Amino acid sequence: MSPDPTTDGFRFDRDTRVEKLADGEFAATLTDAWTTFTSHPNGGYVLGAALNALRQNLSQPDPLAVSAFFLRPAAPGEATARTEVVREGRRTATGQVRLEQGGKEIVRATATYGDLSPDPSARVLALDEPPHLPAPEDCPVPPEFDNPEGLGIARSVEYRYPGRPGWLDGRKDGRPHAEFWMRFADGREPDTHALVSMVDFAPPAVLEIGEFATITVELSVHVRARPAPGWLACRVFTKHVSGGLHEEDMEIWDGTGTLVAQCRQLAMLL
Amino acid sequence: MSPDPTTDGFRFDRDTRVEKLADGEFAATLTDAWTTFTSHPNGGYVLGAALNALRQNLSQPDPLAVSAFFLRPAAPGEATARTEVVREGRRTATGQVRLEQGGKEIVRATATYGDLSPDPSARVLALDEPPHLPAPEDCPVPPEFDNPEGLGIARSVEYRYPGRPGWLDGRKDGRPHAEFWMRFADGREPDTHALVSMVDFAPPAVLEIGEFATITVELSVHVRARPAPGWLACRVFTKHVSGGLHEEDMEIWDGTGTLVAQCRQLAMLL
Repeated sequence: MSPDPTTDGFRFDRDTRVEKLADGEFAATLTDAWTTFTSHPNGGYVLGAALNALRQNLSQPDPLAVSAFFLRPAAPGEATARTEVVREGRRTATGQVRLEQGGKEIVRATATYGDLSPDPSARVLALDEPPHLPAPEDCPVPPEFDNPEGLGIARSVEYRYPGRPGWLDGRKDGRPHAEFWMRFADGREPDTHALVSMVDFAPPAVLEIGEFATITVELSVHVRARPAPGWLACRVFTKHVSGGLHEEDMEIWDGTGTLVAQCRQLAMLL
Repeated sequence: MSPDPTTDGFRFDRDTRVEKLADGEFAATLTDAWTTFTSHPNGGYVLGAALNALRQNLSQPDPLAVSAFFLRPAAPGEATARTEVVREGRRTATGQVRLEQGGKEIVRATATYGDLSPDPSARVLALDEPPHLPAPEDCPVPPEFDNPEGLGIARSVEYRYPGRPGWLDGRKDGRPHAEFWMRFADGREPDTHALVSMVDFAPPAVLEIGEFATITVELSVHVRARPAPGWLACRVFTKHVSGGLHEEDMEIWDGTGTLVAQCRQLAMLL
């Protein structure tokens, strides 16, 4: 695939680049620029590399529905993506990718792609509202966000919260619900491909109830529209914790107030 | 797998029975007892047959997270399920199943199983409430529900709505949000295996806005607890319709007020 002049050179694109090795087989190199509290690369970032391989062989431009199962923690370093075209239809194309490190499968993702070109004739119903947030420049930046030791993702992604998150001060009595702005730190604009990764970039909502060790079992994301350039308004929340499991919902809205991605994860407390 | 005396003989179990043909290969026969408005067998029912094959080879008892991609419409008749154990871990087991008819793949599902045995020591947080419904016996049954021509699922599943759904009278101005009771018509009690099918048994919420022709692209379900016997309280809703696509959320709560399953689908309007 020839470089895309609009995104080439940005960190997300460099760090998810793949090289074709054989039919349906690609090499990727995971970097340490997207590590989280777990010290492993963020799952959304890892998924982004896997889908960057998968989409090379699909005829449709936009991911509509992606489901990823996280089988083992990823590590910075070499990875191999094995892709399969499952079905090419008229309106959609479905494929699967298995990402391996050290001969072991770490992520398996299935995805249906389609075309989210704006269609003014399509019916629109929107029964929910975007987060109501102060302008990004009016949100205070906690000093911890400026010096995120070992937390690669906090250097690669910018976050703007309307207030100081309680978990930064060790509070565990919060409500697992947060609204905030997000964008790539180096100015890369969002697109439907990047949204599939970005839905996993939120600090977990359960940080607000003192749960720092949580790993994703499955993540399912629906991309609903191509995002406008600029900051993205995000809403992340958990409503049910039980049996050592919790769901986490993430919504991303663009600056025009359009819902562009919905995501739900099932995660396990360690 | 030897017959389970608690469920053997019920229609859902008869109609999702599988027979082993070879390692990882099973025969199933889809029936016409679960057809919907589309005249095709309900996707949840079809998924139930596929998972009935997959679970034979997994060590854990309960589906925790299942994602299914619906590739082609199913038809009553023979089907072949090809299963793969993806990873057997300490707390979870993940597998994949491809269901084929006439040599073509109709459903691909990936699933992580675990153990939802009640754990009194586990942290519980429940920030949402079950549907507030009159007792099932106080819900009027529309006469259309008693004589559902060609609609197999309405004979196999019982529904109790607190009021008469507007779509029965051709109204298209409703809110795509419904709460109702559901159970198998023949008295089969719910369990975690059946819940994965039951999350797809709701009449679509978008019927309330006049959309009858909708097909599922992807369905993702998280099973959160083993359900108590009896009627299940359900909540189905759509918040966003755009670009010919809509999501549909479904929650199932058991009679004790416990959330037992959460599901989101991405569906395409025809």
